Amino acid sequence: MSDRYEIRVAGSGGQGVILAAVIIGQAAALMEEGLNSVQTQAYGPEARGGASKSEVVLARGEIDYPKAAKPNLLAILTQKACDEYAGDAAAGGTIILDDFFVTEVPKVDAEIYRLPIVRTAREVLGREIVTNMVTLGAIARVLELEKLVRPESIRNTILANVPKGTEELNSNAFDEGYKLMKDKK
Amino acid sequence: MSDRYEIRVAGSGGQGVILAAVIIGQAAALMEEGLNSVQTQAYGPEARGGASKSEVVLARGEIDYPKAAKPNLLAILTQKACDEYAGDAAAGGTIILDDFFVTEVPKVDAEIYRLPIVRTAREVLGREIVTNMVTLGAIARVLELEKLVRPESIRNTILANVPKGTEELNSNAFDEGYKLMKDKK
Repeated sequence: MSDRYEIRVAGSGGQGVILAAVIIGQAAALMEEGLNSVQTQAYGPEARGGASKSEVVLARGEIDYPKAAKPNLLAILTQKACDEYAGDAAAGGTIILDDFFVTEVPKVDAEIYRLPIVRTAREVLGREIVTNMVTLGAIARVLELEKLVRPESIRNTILANVPKGTEELNSNAFDEGYKLMKDKK
Repeated sequence: MSDRYEIRVAGSGGQGVILAAVIIGQAAALMEEGLNSVQTQAYGPEARGGASKSEVVLARGEIDYPKAAKPNLLAILTQKACDEYAGDAAAGGTIILDDFFVTEVPKVDAEIYRLPIVRTAREVLGREIVTNMVTLGAIARVLELEKLVRPESIRNTILANVPKGTEELNSNAFDEGYKLMKDKK
């Protein structure tokens, strides 16, 4: 990477996009990974009723500007978020789309992967609430290939952040998401 | 306020400071409150093993710089966080300290309130895990007096963010924290 890698996770309220971004930010800063990270969400009148987004910036050096203006990696979970944000992707970046809620694939200069994220949460895990963990699994595969953060660091950070008793469900959801992306890339 | 009000919540991992800041950011941006907000956490090698902090910036206009460099309101839940961050408070700002974990009161130009936040979570609510909700209650009183965000907006945002079945516990914790601060100010 250049010394900056921007990630945005976008969807609707209740899909857990903030927790997903928080976990990426924490995992990247683990001793074993050694990155700096800043994790941000902005709210305001213009965001109301719109798509919800959460961002992380990773860098080896200091992070001066904490927002993801041109995300290298976008994970998008609703059509509304796709309409609003797909055009922001960095040229040649990666876009992960949920194939259930995003039906119109955007025409942008990025590698686009349509994955059954929500369907996997519902049908394989039996709980739509783990949509964000499936998403994290897919993101983890991309960050592994970019040699930024290892999947194990993300998994361990998930385990440290989810309620007691839900570790196995969340960990399984992460594995399923990782496999979805690994099958493609 | 000038057109910018900075809040920092600091403590140790596991005290829920991120969720507290996320809730303030969301509440401030509710239609009824009409503020813009940006909520941030930064992680990096220098933060490791240190204090955990989470920030929110509120403004009526656009927020260009999302970090809380000189917080108008600091809520501090551990001695380590106090040593590290109390000196950052804006002149004449407000500092809320947990009276169990913060034993040395900093000498800084700010209004300092020592409140039994952790003890209330433990002894009144019976669950230390709601420390962040008691903290939010105390913060809500300050934001009410500053005419920034109404307590009801924060409570409603809490209810929208906590797991089903824990609404009453969290709401009670919020009320107790609000009372702690109201008794002083």
